[in-house]
Amino acid sequence: MAHKIGKYTIKMDNKPSVQGFAAICGKKESEGPLGKYFDKTFEDTSLGESSWEKSESRLQSETVNTALDKAKVTASEVDYIFAGDLLNQCISSTFGLRNLGIPFLGQYGACSTMAQTIIMSSIMVDSGIAKRCVAVTSSHFCSAERQFRLPLEYGGQRTPTAQWTVTGSGAVLIAEKSNNTYIEHATVGKIMDLGVKDQNNMGAAMAPAAAETLKNFLIDTGTKPDDYDLILTGDLGEVGSKLIRQLLEKDDINLGENYNDCGLMIYYKEKQDVHSGGSGCGCSGSVLCSLILQQLRKKELNNVLFMATGALMSPTSTQQGETIPGIAHLVHFKND
Amino acid sequence: MAHKIGKYTIKMDNKPSVQGFAAICGKKESEGPLGKYFDKTFEDTSLGESSWEKSESRLQSETVNTALDKAKVTASEVDYIFAGDLLNQCISSTFGLRNLGIPFLGQYGACSTMAQTIIMSSIMVDSGIAKRCVAVTSSHFCSAERQFRLPLEYGGQRTPTAQWTVTGSGAVLIAEKSNNTYIEHATVGKIMDLGVKDQNNMGAAMAPAAAETLKNFLIDTGTKPDDYDLILTGDLGEVGSKLIRQLLEKDDINLGENYNDCGLMIYYKEKQDVHSGGSGCGCSGSVLCSLILQQLRKKELNNVLFMATGALMSPTSTQQGETIPGIAHLVHFKND
Repeated sequence: MAHKIGKYTIKMDNKPSVQGFAAICGKKESEGPLGKYFDKTFEDTSLGESSWEKSESRLQSETVNTALDKAKVTASEVDYIFAGDLLNQCISSTFGLRNLGIPFLGQYGACSTMAQTIIMSSIMVDSGIAKRCVAVTSSHFCSAERQFRLPLEYGGQRTPTAQWTVTGSGAVLIAEKSNNTYIEHATVGKIMDLGVKDQNNMGAAMAPAAAETLKNFLIDTGTKPDDYDLILTGDLGEVGSKLIRQLLEKDDINLGENYNDCGLMIYYKEKQDVHSGGSGCGCSGSVLCSLILQQLRKKELNNVLFMATGALMSPTSTQQGETIPGIAHLVHFKND
Repeated sequence: MAHKIGKYTIKMDNKPSVQGFAAICGKKESEGPLGKYFDKTFEDTSLGESSWEKSESRLQSETVNTALDKAKVTASEVDYIFAGDLLNQCISSTFGLRNLGIPFLGQYGACSTMAQTIIMSSIMVDSGIAKRCVAVTSSHFCSAERQFRLPLEYGGQRTPTAQWTVTGSGAVLIAEKSNNTYIEHATVGKIMDLGVKDQNNMGAAMAPAAAETLKNFLIDTGTKPDDYDLILTGDLGEVGSKLIRQLLEKDDINLGENYNDCGLMIYYKEKQDVHSGGSGCGCSGSVLCSLILQQLRKKELNNVLFMATGALMSPTSTQQGETIPGIAHLVHFKND
C-alpha cells in the first residue's frame, strides 16, 4: 500500500501503470521537433468551434477519447477523471468532459496540473479504490493570451523572457498493475514565493519550487540526478531551466546531462520565435504524453522524473501588485 | 483499506476522523441564525486588507490556523492541504495558504469544493499515506459579485431566484482514527447538465447533480433517507432544494423531514433579504464546520450526509451562451 518515505515522497506499492496515453496539439506544435509524435494535430486551431474556450474544451475531450480508444477502454470503465486547466473556473475541463459520465474531480495546479492529476490518479489506483483513472490537462494559446495577457487582436509585443502557451492536451490512463511503465514515486510540492513579480517571466517564478521539490525527492529516496535517464521539468523555459541548475548547485546537486524542460523541447528555438520556450498545462502534458511515454514504452527510457511546474497567480493578483507563487509536483516513472 | 462499494461509493476502512475544524464568517453571516456557532466573525468584511481578493485569502488562512490551533496541531505536522475557491485561478487558496509550507493540492469543484477536499483528505489518511490533512475552502460576497456578476458599486438588482454568496470559510483537519466523528463513505459525483442557462438560478442547475449523487449513494449502500439524522445539501437554496425533492420522488425516494440545505440555514429568510438563500464554497464550508460538526461532536447528530453542490460555469461560458453543468460530491459522517 502506498506510504510516505522521508518527509515528502509517496512510494506506490502496487505499480499503478500507464495503460494508455494520448497527446493532441495545434498547428505550431505540429511544426515543432515533436510534431510527428503527437496522436493528432489540428491545422485549424479553432477545431471548428465558435470560441477559443470551446476549442480548448474540444481539444481536451478529443485527447481523452483518443487515450481511451488506444487502450481499448470505454469511459464507463473509468472510475474517476482528474482534470484541470488554466481557464477561469477550469471550463476547458468541465465543459470538455461533461458528457463522459465519469465521476469528476477538478484539479487546479496551474501548469503543474499534469503531474498533480497523475499523482491523484495513481493514489486512487494504488490504494485499490479505483481500477482505472484518467489524468488530463490542456492549454490553448488563444484562450490563454486573451485571459492572461492581451487579446490576439491587439498584436502586443512579447518580452524576451515571455513564453508561448502551447495549444495542446495530454491524457494518461492509469490502471492496475500491468507490464507497462508504472508510477514508482510521487512528491507533492509546497507553494514557494521568492518575490518574482514579472508575469512575463514565469520560469523565474517557478524555478525555486521545482528545485525544492526535486531536492526533497532526492533526499527522501537517497538518490542523485545521475540515477535517472531523464529529469524533465514542465515549462521553466530558457530562463527557469538555467535558474534551477544554479539553485540546485548551491545544495551540491548537479543536474547533469540528463536534464531537460518540456518548454525547450516543443518548439524550434530559432525558427519558431517563441522567446523563452513553451508553457501552459498543455506543454508538459503533450510532451509527456507523446515522446516521453512512447520512449518509456519502447524502453528507450526506463527511469524518468517528470516534474510539472505551476505559477499560481491570476491577472487580478498581478494587477494588485502581488508576487507570483510557484509550485512543482514530481512523478517518478519506471519500467521493470 | 478504502474500497468501492457498488458503482460509485467509497467505503473508508480506517475511520479517517475529524480531529479539528473551524469556520470564520463576515458581518451578514454573524447576524444570521448560525452567528453564534462560528469561531470568529468580522464586522469589517475587508479584514483590513486592501482588496476583496486579499480579504478572502486572509479569511482562508485565519480559518486554517484556527482549526489547527483548536486541534493543537502545527502546520508542519500536516502532510497535505487540499484547498479551493471560486476566484479565477483559485487565488484565495494559493495566496492565503502560501506561507504555511504544507504540500498543496489545489482543488476546483466550484461550491462542491468543501466535500471534494474532505474526500481527498480522507482518502490520503485512510490509505495511510498521510497522518493529517487539511480540507479548506472559502468564498467572499464582494470578490464573487465583482467576478461573477456586477461590481458592488453598480448596485445591480437581484432576481428572485438569485442567491447570496456567503463571506465565509470552513476548514477541517482529517487525521488517523480517534474517538471523534469519522468519515464512513464518500461518493464522487458526475457532471450533470440538463440545460439550465440562467446564472441567477444556480439551484436549478445543481439540483439534478445532487439528486443523482444521493441516489447513487443510497443504491450503493442499500440505505434510505430515513436512516440518516440529517441529509444536508450545500447551496441549492429555495429553488434547488424544492427541485431535488421532486427529482428524487420520481425515483420513489422521499427526502423526508431530515433534509436541509446550508443555503437555507445560514441567513434569516425574511429579515436578511437574500432571495433564494446563501451560496458559495464558503456557504457549505462554514455551515458544516460550525453547527453541524459541533452537533456531531456532541452526539446530537450521529449519522449525517453532507453533499456540497457546484455550478461548473464561468462568466465567459455564460456569455458564450453555454448551459450550466452541475456537480455534487457526498461525504457520510458518522459517530461510533
